[in-house]
Amino acid sequence: MAKGKKAPAGKAAVAKISPLAPKSFAHLPPLAGVRLATGEAGIKYKNRTDVLLAILAPGTEVAGVFTKSKTASAPVDWCRAQLKRGQARALVVNSGNANAFTGQAGLAGTRAVADAASAVIGCKASDVFLASTGVIGEPLPSEKITKILGRVADDASASGWRAAAEAIMTTDTYPKLATATAMIDGVKVTLNGIAKGSGMIAPDMATMLAFVFTDAALPSHILQDCLNAGVGPSFNSITVDSDTSTSDTLLLFATGKGAKHGAVSKASDKRLSAFRRSLDALLLELALGVVKDGEGAEKLIQVDVTAAENDIAARRIALAVANSPLVKTAIAGNDANWGRVVMAVGKAGEAADRDKLKISFGGHVVAEKGARAPRYDEAAATKAVSGREVQVAIDLGLGKGAARVWTCDLTHGYIDINGSYRS
Amino acid sequence: MAKGKKAPAGKAAVAKISPLAPKSFAHLPPLAGVRLATGEAGIKYKNRTDVLLAILAPGTEVAGVFTKSKTASAPVDWCRAQLKRGQARALVVNSGNANAFTGQAGLAGTRAVADAASAVIGCKASDVFLASTGVIGEPLPSEKITKILGRVADDASASGWRAAAEAIMTTDTYPKLATATAMIDGVKVTLNGIAKGSGMIAPDMATMLAFVFTDAALPSHILQDCLNAGVGPSFNSITVDSDTSTSDTLLLFATGKGAKHGAVSKASDKRLSAFRRSLDALLLELALGVVKDGEGAEKLIQVDVTAAENDIAARRIALAVANSPLVKTAIAGNDANWGRVVMAVGKAGEAADRDKLKISFGGHVVAEKGARAPRYDEAAATKAVSGREVQVAIDLGLGKGAARVWTCDLTHGYIDINGSYRS
Repeated sequence: MAKGKKAPAGKAAVAKISPLAPKSFAHLPPLAGVRLATGEAGIKYKNRTDVLLAILAPGTEVAGVFTKSKTASAPVDWCRAQLKRGQARALVVNSGNANAFTGQAGLAGTRAVADAASAVIGCKASDVFLASTGVIGEPLPSEKITKILGRVADDASASGWRAAAEAIMTTDTYPKLATATAMIDGVKVTLNGIAKGSGMIAPDMATMLAFVFTDAALPSHILQDCLNAGVGPSFNSITVDSDTSTSDTLLLFATGKGAKHGAVSKASDKRLSAFRRSLDALLLELALGVVKDGEGAEKLIQVDVTAAENDIAARRIALAVANSPLVKTAIAGNDANWGRVVMAVGKAGEAADRDKLKISFGGHVVAEKGARAPRYDEAAATKAVSGREVQVAIDLGLGKGAARVWTCDLTHGYIDINGSYRS
Repeated sequence: MAKGKKAPAGKAAVAKISPLAPKSFAHLPPLAGVRLATGEAGIKYKNRTDVLLAILAPGTEVAGVFTKSKTASAPVDWCRAQLKRGQARALVVNSGNANAFTGQAGLAGTRAVADAASAVIGCKASDVFLASTGVIGEPLPSEKITKILGRVADDASASGWRAAAEAIMTTDTYPKLATATAMIDGVKVTLNGIAKGSGMIAPDMATMLAFVFTDAALPSHILQDCLNAGVGPSFNSITVDSDTSTSDTLLLFATGKGAKHGAVSKASDKRLSAFRRSLDALLLELALGVVKDGEGAEKLIQVDVTAAENDIAARRIALAVANSPLVKTAIAGNDANWGRVVMAVGKAGEAADRDKLKISFGGHVVAEKGARAPRYDEAAATKAVSGREVQVAIDLGLGKGAARVWTCDLTHGYIDINGSYRS
């Protein structure tokens, strides 16, 4: 595809592993109170796992955040309904079919899977959490899942995190795994997380599925508070294509089966700060894992907006830049086309003053005071957009609002993947 | 590129003429009071015209609509300032450089071009309207324009509409021309229009540049009223990539040099209805010409939303669908992936009821009552998205709100063009 001095805009072959994939994957330790198993239900994919079953110890508490889509999937409806009680004994996830826009049959499908899991584990169906990811609108062949659940459960073990992350992949080119520890009240607790997602990624929520497990003993309302705080600067700050999934689900389970720590009953408890920091870091790691595996992604782009009128304005401007097809294609082509960043700032609808705006690529100031920067250097600007990680900084010179979001470039790979996904 | 049973998602070569281009171009008749000329200033392009000069008869009235970008170009600022007087004697347009985000030098450039044109024509600089289109942020070499304007003016003639439309092209693959007539008070008047635009196209305004001329005798405030009414269902209802240009300019000039008709002094005058209808049709023809030449476009997609809560909700939903990269890539790949339409409706943030939603492709109902339509036929659905023109209809089943917008598909051509535009 060499056709001139510029690199081609990412002529990626379908299913090629993202060049932004980590060199090695985190090894997740066993987590007391969680046993994992995977199986091949053959829902859509052949010769790969497509069902994950996580069996959770009695007493496990749960919190969740879901898509804001008005056409949410049946499993999202199911989880929302069960979440009110805050108790969980199992998680069943399938890939290959989203069970979204599937009507009464879709609801019946969630019920059937929950019933089957409850029978296998010996718990109430309402303690089973569900997630599905894949094609929208196709009826879910739930019997393919229910008939293998018993066999799958027999193999459940405390290891198997990598296999779990792989079973929930769709167009992902690599599994997303992260682990962290934190001290609560002087006692070490562990957090393990897995995620999937590579297209239909936009806030809110900017992933399809993510599941975090901890052995800490924390009640549902505290988990929810921690999750609400952590999702903003992580999953709600990434975008691949501005398209919001019907299935976005982030669940946080706490088994309470780790080393015993003092009881925490208030979200404001200071003994939670280390746990919150570790959770935030883990959520960000998973979220960046998702955006680095954005469909066709060749580059990770970080957009920082500072000195905006306020944080909300900063976020809108950052997302306008991160979602601009023209900005994303330019960066894909190693083109330091800062004029398109100007355009994207201008279209965001937020306060911006052409003559106060300052734009930098990788620290090199390219535009300021309403024009190209006096010390602009084409070679330096090009170099700043030519690597695997690109930083775009926008200083509006107006106020104290700030936001940081991440996206990936827009390449031929995205078109390849999405022009024939369903077929 | 044959790689399976599906058609590839538009592996268009750069600068290939859009397959949606008209078979032949409208022939625009001379228009009393308008003389046109073009020249080669060599601003960016070689061996092609890049400057248009339109000389307008004394007494010409003008109205305009501009980009809502917060980082509007210097010529947009210039036109806005001059428009208050409603008088015009000349229009100078250049392609290859947008003179946007060019600071004081940009303002000086507009002044220099206006001064040069006023000297050539013998009018006030404030009667000269300006537009520039092309790269953002590069200083405009205005002397390349000013030094040829006198020579260009010498060749001005009443024909030359096709040449005028060609001189303002950037990544356009064909010129956009339209003509219409209308009766005002029993007297025939003529309207001629040209437009350019193929990327950075989104409401408001959804084109880079469009200029309409009429020989009718109408004051500026009436022209403005007609333009405001006409721009909504035409240029403000098309989108190529959701990116709003810094330079969008639509000007309507009335020379008053056609056959004499009775004076019209109020915008509500019923004798204007035929003129308004013809103007509306001409604006729509030009706008569709722009979207059919969307960068990399292989298909024209019409999105109709009906029975929404209200017209504003309908429009937001229609634009969410029309701007969805996943919907646009699916259609590029002849994939009747109606689940992505469900997703896009869901993300629009407007009232939508999964169980009342009805979606059709080319009249074939694909989804209704919260699930795939009982009479869904894959072959029929695929056929409906496989032609050059695709109709997506969304009935929300809620209220009386309706909207129609147009877009094009998202193909490899878009990536090719925009990964290396500036270089």
